[in-house]
Amino acid sequence: MDGKTEPRKAVVLVSGGVDSTTCLAIARSEGYETYALTFQYSQRHAVELEAARRVVDALEAAEHLVLDVPMDRIGGSALTSALEVPKDTPEAEMGRRIPVTYVPARNTVFLSLALAWAEVLGAEDIFIGVNALDYSGYPDCRPEFIRAFEEMANLATRAGVEGTSRFRIHAPLMRWTKQQIIRRGVELGLDYSMTHSCYDPSPEGLACGRCESCRLRSKGFAEAGTPDPTRYAGTGPR
Amino acid sequence: MDGKTEPRKAVVLVSGGVDSTTCLAIARSEGYETYALTFQYSQRHAVELEAARRVVDALEAAEHLVLDVPMDRIGGSALTSALEVPKDTPEAEMGRRIPVTYVPARNTVFLSLALAWAEVLGAEDIFIGVNALDYSGYPDCRPEFIRAFEEMANLATRAGVEGTSRFRIHAPLMRWTKQQIIRRGVELGLDYSMTHSCYDPSPEGLACGRCESCRLRSKGFAEAGTPDPTRYAGTGPR
Repeated sequence: MDGKTEPRKAVVLVSGGVDSTTCLAIARSEGYETYALTFQYSQRHAVELEAARRVVDALEAAEHLVLDVPMDRIGGSALTSALEVPKDTPEAEMGRRIPVTYVPARNTVFLSLALAWAEVLGAEDIFIGVNALDYSGYPDCRPEFIRAFEEMANLATRAGVEGTSRFRIHAPLMRWTKQQIIRRGVELGLDYSMTHSCYDPSPEGLACGRCESCRLRSKGFAEAGTPDPTRYAGTGPR
Repeated sequence: MDGKTEPRKAVVLVSGGVDSTTCLAIARSEGYETYALTFQYSQRHAVELEAARRVVDALEAAEHLVLDVPMDRIGGSALTSALEVPKDTPEAEMGRRIPVTYVPARNTVFLSLALAWAEVLGAEDIFIGVNALDYSGYPDCRPEFIRAFEEMANLATRAGVEGTSRFRIHAPLMRWTKQQIIRRGVELGLDYSMTHSCYDPSPEGLACGRCESCRLRSKGFAEAGTPDPTRYAGTGPR
């Protein structure tokens, strides 16, 4: 009876990239006890998983759950199948069309599993680092999707029937540029060298510098006026 | 150029129980080319998977995708963890409270993966055999949940952004009693001996006769005036 209240729990989706790492740092800075959730859905991204483990460790999440999700068995994306990851897309084209790196319904599947875990933990808050500004035009990164998911989540669960709690989907980066995201992360003391963004890393885990994810990332560091800590294969981003 | 149109594709969730089997037969009777999707999420239900394979085979689905989904790693339910499955619940109590067999956010997770597959297949229709009448009070079996999921699905996907198609979630059994479901299945020529419903089967795959799922099923056969083809352990349902 020392007058302390229990910290609120939040489930945070953590891929190990710049956005989700910043999102985890924000949830922590708001006083949440964080439960980090990482998905393994393609062999291509084993290097992402290592980054996620570093990030979760550094940001002292209460728990880290890594789930295998069979998105690769469903196919339909360059990130989970043999399609080639596009390189050197002109900047003006980024975000205009949905690229082949779009994984069908990925954030719906990820948020659904986050919702399941939140319900079991007794957490009402779920954080996801989606962003609708410096992004690749994925439909499931838009605010209207996040709102519709939240609405559905409250009808899908025990909380929805019993009215005992209400789930909130937090997308704090939604309207930030990559530059703003990195500035906020630096303010919060983040060391981005532990993160990984590249869609097509070398076998040693070095970034290609040429996929959309690399190029959005390096542009973000340049615009934020922060040294880019990424280890690139070859000459790095153009 | 023989004037034939391609059949519409539908993804159908098939667990191998009475409801999903009837749902698959209904989708087929409506002229859909069916793509059956089964989830393996707990060792307890290996016998369910065998039933699903029999059903999909008998009803000539175009494809059967069986996905491992790690609901057991999330926990929180008697169906995926060490909690005991309740037996002999008084009939008046069924559907009143959410029982421990509720798997948090299960239908949300399952429909999300169905949505991903539908998008890859170019299917606009998803069938799920949920039922809000003779049911166990699960929040994610209610019509308001299905409507909210459909709304979200159309914002989550390429179709939602490009406006090229619209996903529909079909829940044809929603307002039917178990008796009506079984009658419809019998009309469609279904042999229910290939299905499995029990939450707690014996090691040989015999039904316990005492869990809610067994009791709803046996009541349904009795009320439909159809012989119950279930193989029970011991004396069968009370």
